[in-house]
Amino acid sequence: MSLFKPVKENQAKGRVKKVFDDIKKSRKIKSIPNFWKYIANNPDTLERTWKNTKEIMKNGALDSKTKELIYIAVSITNSCEYCIRSHSFAAKKKGATDQMLKEMIDVVGIANQNNKLVESYQVEVDNFLK
Amino acid sequence: MSLFKPVKENQAKGRVKKVFDDIKKSRKIKSIPNFWKYIANNPDTLERTWKNTKEIMKNGALDSKTKELIYIAVSITNSCEYCIRSHSFAAKKKGATDQMLKEMIDVVGIANQNNKLVESYQVEVDNFLK
Amino acid sequence: MSLFKPVKENQAKGRVKKVFDDIKKSRKIKSIPNFWKYIANNPDTLERTWKNTKEIMKNGALDSKTKELIYIAVSITNSCEYCIRSHSFAAKKKGATDQMLKEMIDVVGIANQNNKLVESYQVEVDNFLK
Amino acid sequence: MSLFKPVKENQAKGRVKKVFDDIKKSRKIKSIPNFWKYIANNPDTLERTWKNTKEIMKNGALDSKTKELIYIAVSITNSCEYCIRSHSFAAKKKGATDQMLKEMIDVVGIANQNNKLVESYQVEVDNFLK
Amino acid sequence: MSLFKPVKENQAKGRVKKVFDDIKKSRKIKSIPNFWKYIANNPDTLERTWKNTKEIMKNGALDSKTKELIYIAVSITNSCEYCIRSHSFAAKKKGATDQMLKEMIDVVGIANQNNKLVESYQVEVDNFLK
Amino acid sequence: MSLFKPVKENQAKGRVKKVFDDIKKSRKIKSIPNFWKYIANNPDTLERTWKNTKEIMKNGALDSKTKELIYIAVSITNSCEYCIRSHSFAAKKKGATDQMLKEMIDVVGIANQNNKLVESYQVEVDNFLK
Repeated sequence: MSLFKPVKENQAKGRVKKVFDDIKKSRKIKSIPNFWKYIANNPDTLERTWKNTKEIMKNGALDSKTKELIYIAVSITNSCEYCIRSHSFAAKKKGATDQMLKEMIDVVGIANQNNKLVESYQVEVDNFLK
Repeated sequence: MSLFKPVKENQAKGRVKKVFDDIKKSRKIKSIPNFWKYIANNPDTLERTWKNTKEIMKNGALDSKTKELIYIAVSITNSCEYCIRSHSFAAKKKGATDQMLKEMIDVVGIANQNNKLVESYQVEVDNFLK
Repeated sequence: MSLFKPVKENQAKGRVKKVFDDIKKSRKIKSIPNFWKYIANNPDTLERTWKNTKEIMKNGALDSKTKELIYIAVSITNSCEYCIRSHSFAAKKKGATDQMLKEMIDVVGIANQNNKLVESYQVEVDNFLK
Repeated sequence: MSLFKPVKENQAKGRVKKVFDDIKKSRKIKSIPNFWKYIANNPDTLERTWKNTKEIMKNGALDSKTKELIYIAVSITNSCEYCIRSHSFAAKKKGATDQMLKEMIDVVGIANQNNKLVESYQVEVDNFLK
Repeated sequence: MSLFKPVKENQAKGRVKKVFDDIKKSRKIKSIPNFWKYIANNPDTLERTWKNTKEIMKNGALDSKTKELIYIAVSITNSCEYCIRSHSFAAKKKGATDQMLKEMIDVVGIANQNNKLVESYQVEVDNFLK
Repeated sequence: MSLFKPVKENQAKGRVKKVFDDIKKSRKIKSIPNFWKYIANNPDTLERTWKNTKEIMKNGALDSKTKELIYIAVSITNSCEYCIRSHSFAAKKKGATDQMLKEMIDVVGIANQNNKLVESYQVEVDNFLK
């Protein structure tokens, strides 16, 4: 029993339909991924999350492929399987190679390790960083 | 009372001194950051961590600036203040601009939010992701 | 291979049976949820956990429905699927509406995002909060 | 060295000033808390975060005091000190009593413990929850 | 502004005094560590937490020194500085050597790294583990 | 769609084969656990991770059974199911009894709870710990 059932595409009306249409158009995809169908249970959440995600993940000083890699790195650290899978798919679509994904994973691994070494030894901030 | 006191540079001998020298040479810096001085309490940890970090963070399919941004993204998600500060310093030295850092932060924010929406709604994996 | 198999209701004896009976009576349910059957492998853990949970989750200055919502918010942040499902069930039984659950989820989302923005920008404590 | 310095109120211009003014008006406060001053380094982040936070934290099916308690519960789970302090302040302003805060803390404690017991014993989802 | 001020020893009465006395007697210490003084704001929390902690941390199939090391490993993973400091102190008092602490830290580091590699590669459970 | 497919034993060549052979020899097992087969997609990651894990998990001031228990405690705190399962298997092989595992779990539970109480009450470091 999930909290809520996904909103099917043919059930989408009003604001939900409008967002679904924009997702398909912007992403050049033919069906709506489950994430959007689940959060459509709350049209406010759907509208807000799509608007924010679209705005944040677009090309900027960082290209959107790099942003996807950063997104996956966070999702691995948070152990969010759906997020890892869906954003790996997106990253590859935007040009990330297998080698890039492998190197990103190594960085995530060493960062998680070194983060804990810092906590263990309670490292003081260096003077040049103050 | 930290678990251990940092090993001062002028106290470094043998394997510790060798690693300290390599850090200064590779990074083109004149003094050893606290992280390495603290973990030097265990020369095995120091040697292994330096070797791994150096190998993983070098230029590859991803340039080392991008790797630093990914490293910071993990450190923010883990709330490791020292790690955020020291790798922001490193990222800037390698050419990351303020605008890049700001965009990375936005990605970290939205990823942490969306990760939790996925957990909340217990989103099922899409067929095209299986 | 889970670490341990659940203790079946008809296998429960002594202290375990006593706790199982109290759970069914207090919660007005006819069968024991898996959580209690698994931790019954250690009767000390079962007794202690049931006693503490019962005491903490009862009506007080906060009603027990609100407590369930707070419990789910923590479970989402920790990505504990079983916990989210079972406490959503409990929350609804205690009168939480779908709209309440949706609003709780939005708060969890924005809190996780803003928590990370605070870490990113290393926000200093305001004078009026000191 | 924080990544960025806070934007002072008398430096705020354009979009930043507009948001600062709305924060003061909506919250009935005379000076801007540090959180908003730090994220003002990126006016997009400031605008988006204020808009979302304001919308999500307002009274709804859950009153805004309850929402603050949920927000603090997440912040404790994420160990975000600034967030705990500032939202405790907000919760009290909205009518949360010390007793409510203490009970919320107990729920956060037991939820974090039970979440880990569930992971330890790898509890299977109950049939009535499927 | 912490949520609550610590309860001073000379202010302790009734149930709080009784727990404080038992802590000093059991631990053979002359003053109460801050943790207990803070949670004494809620005598229920104090009584329950002391009872549970005392019961769980005592010698059993695992000696209490090993239990302290496990406690610190969790606290490092959760980045709880106070917890790391106070339980390192306790571990040393119970006979943990510096070398033991250093080896525990290395295990915590590699476990955090490998945990994330498992999430990254979404490793399937082996048949012999099912 | 996992990011990568596991490398089958009969596909292993060169460096990968060499590591696979060493794993089977050192661990006295006849087939390679999935973890190593997945990370073999990046031979650098495989070599480095095996070398580090082997070195860190061997008998030292802490025996390798105790190290496995610490490893599981971290994996529970990080909610890594595969890691909990595989290292419980390893711990038992090295002599950990069911009772030891149950006591370790209790320590993990109380540590996670108390860690959050410390954050909630923002406990200040004791003078004797400074």
